[in-house]
Amino acid sequence: MEINRHLQNVKPSYIREILSAAKSPDVISLAGGLPATDLMPVELFMQAMATLDRTPEVFQYGETQGYAPLLEFVEKNYHLSNEMASIVCNGSQQGLDLIARAFINPGDIVVMEAPSYLGALQVFGLAQANIESVQQYENGPDLEELESIFASKSVKLFYAVPDFHNPTGVCWPLEVRQKVASLCLQYDVTFVEDAPYRDMRFNGEALPLVSSWCVDRAIILRSFSKLAAPGVRLGIVSSRHALIVPMIKVKQAADLHTNLPMQAALLNVFQNSEFQMHKERIRTRYQERYQSLCEALNDLSEQGCSFDTVEGGMFVWLKLPDINAMSLASRLIENGVAVVPSDVFYPSEEMNRPALRLNFSHCSPEKLKKAVSVIKQALLEMI
Amino acid sequence: MEINRHLQNVKPSYIREILSAAKSPDVISLAGGLPATDLMPVELFMQAMATLDRTPEVFQYGETQGYAPLLEFVEKNYHLSNEMASIVCNGSQQGLDLIARAFINPGDIVVMEAPSYLGALQVFGLAQANIESVQQYENGPDLEELESIFASKSVKLFYAVPDFHNPTGVCWPLEVRQKVASLCLQYDVTFVEDAPYRDMRFNGEALPLVSSWCVDRAIILRSFSKLAAPGVRLGIVSSRHALIVPMIKVKQAADLHTNLPMQAALLNVFQNSEFQMHKERIRTRYQERYQSLCEALNDLSEQGCSFDTVEGGMFVWLKLPDINAMSLASRLIENGVAVVPSDVFYPSEEMNRPALRLNFSHCSPEKLKKAVSVIKQALLEMI
Repeated sequence: MEINRHLQNVKPSYIREILSAAKSPDVISLAGGLPATDLMPVELFMQAMATLDRTPEVFQYGETQGYAPLLEFVEKNYHLSNEMASIVCNGSQQGLDLIARAFINPGDIVVMEAPSYLGALQVFGLAQANIESVQQYENGPDLEELESIFASKSVKLFYAVPDFHNPTGVCWPLEVRQKVASLCLQYDVTFVEDAPYRDMRFNGEALPLVSSWCVDRAIILRSFSKLAAPGVRLGIVSSRHALIVPMIKVKQAADLHTNLPMQAALLNVFQNSEFQMHKERIRTRYQERYQSLCEALNDLSEQGCSFDTVEGGMFVWLKLPDINAMSLASRLIENGVAVVPSDVFYPSEEMNRPALRLNFSHCSPEKLKKAVSVIKQALLEMI
Repeated sequence: MEINRHLQNVKPSYIREILSAAKSPDVISLAGGLPATDLMPVELFMQAMATLDRTPEVFQYGETQGYAPLLEFVEKNYHLSNEMASIVCNGSQQGLDLIARAFINPGDIVVMEAPSYLGALQVFGLAQANIESVQQYENGPDLEELESIFASKSVKLFYAVPDFHNPTGVCWPLEVRQKVASLCLQYDVTFVEDAPYRDMRFNGEALPLVSSWCVDRAIILRSFSKLAAPGVRLGIVSSRHALIVPMIKVKQAADLHTNLPMQAALLNVFQNSEFQMHKERIRTRYQERYQSLCEALNDLSEQGCSFDTVEGGMFVWLKLPDINAMSLASRLIENGVAVVPSDVFYPSEEMNRPALRLNFSHCSPEKLKKAVSVIKQALLEMI
């Protein structure tokens, strides 16, 4: 049986495949966007799940939009206005998929920064969007290029990760946020703000969501994978009520609703007084790991590598000298270190500037240092 | 922002909306396909979840295909051959969606029985399939009509629910199963066997899957919602390896993977020796409820109603005299009884033969009898 035509054009996720390959205990993996397994709030989830027999209705079919008490908590916690609504998804990845399926007709223009989050490239590719890329610099998107696209074409969505971007770790400064919001308002472009790493700030002051300046034209995606646990696959999308309704309609066909016992358990975890301490612990430990990685990476400057500092998130973007990043990554995996080469984050080869995405949340400081020494050795052999 | 064109053509689920309306404790609902809340194995799930700290890795990101120990269990339990593979989904509803997204190009022909499962109509509609309907009788599809469509058109999939069909409760006899399988082989049509009610047999002998005679051209969907719990949203799709691979690719973009702690908990429930007793208890109680409903329904023959007996599942299909089923359903909801009218299960009005789908698994025998007396009163007023 022939598979769907559009699916034939969707690249398999190199990251998911390397994650599979990197499962061997001998491999040091800086490849995934994985939280530290040893820091996950398993005990809080155990306590939460032990309360579920008090709400046996969560084992029954539920509402497509989500578990009402969790939705209420989210509305309060994120100070959502009455005009806003939310939908619970199987991770914010499903949120992206619902957005694409609810709003994108084949050929519709979606603007993204390059490099881009691979999961978003896959989703919008599957929806047959026409993806336009804007070069990303250390302060976010090239604003002139962005305005020129907005002005010359009928753009439906601008998808971005303004806080600790995946893969680069870039965090947009205040003035960029305001400018992007005003451009979206001016040119009637819906801004899709993907904020999975927003709460993972370990340094500096949190900046307002870009959406706070264009709330009527914004869709916000929040992930509970990073601070809680990715295995539970829970995220939430918030927007004006009118934009959530078609997403509910798609989700109804897609899977009826998201796992209810786990929604109830997550709410219990959020309400546990120890969760605040857990979040602080994670941020502190990730900062330590980040600093260990940076110290080690400074040692690669002789090989022509450089990187910009980050104030949160999970990734450092190591810019390489003029070598093939994919070949370097292949060599590294042979030597027991998994990383993701820049190639997979660009929609086209021409835009690619060789770099490696290095995750610092998953490995111990010792392993991070060991990994960098392997990278150094490989660079010495390749240059 | 304009919504996706195809979504504009997808009917919202009347059932999901009536489920919402029927939530009031004053309403007796025979509308949903809901298992009995009081019979759900909550205690087995509680025991299962209490073991999850032994496998903390289930809180981390996992494989898109599913939790390996659950996949192994399923392979053994269903005696799947080495050529077969499976993928864990958010309920078998997501399985259907993955099939549609992996294989259907706009305009591809999908054959279904009429009346049809609404969730399948939605999914194939969203994928812009060209849906061809075959009239269903008490022994399954009209075989002549089916062969005539297979012979005259290039059919991609034949979707069916051969065991205790939703909405009619029809169960295909052996010779129909063999004939359909041979037609699928002869005309190179992939058979999508949706089997959510297969294990809900309370009378008679189980018949082989239709797919057992056309395994190379079959995709089998199994739900864990009916015997375990629907709130956990877990189901499984099995087929030849080559057909599962593109579904994994779609699921990777759609939501990365299904909730892992709940996959591990479900496996533990399956392995609990009390689960067998739970299944027998459910079947016995559903049979009691079914019999109570039938006794009450016999009282409607004077009003020109009739129904065929069923040997399992969750539904009785009450054929009505020549009145408007939708109007009857509206009147019933005003009088505190929720049912689903036949209209919503037909792709076109012309095929509709007035009937009501009555669920017998969710309500007590007393409530079922009360509901039928309300139906009788409404019929007396309308005829």
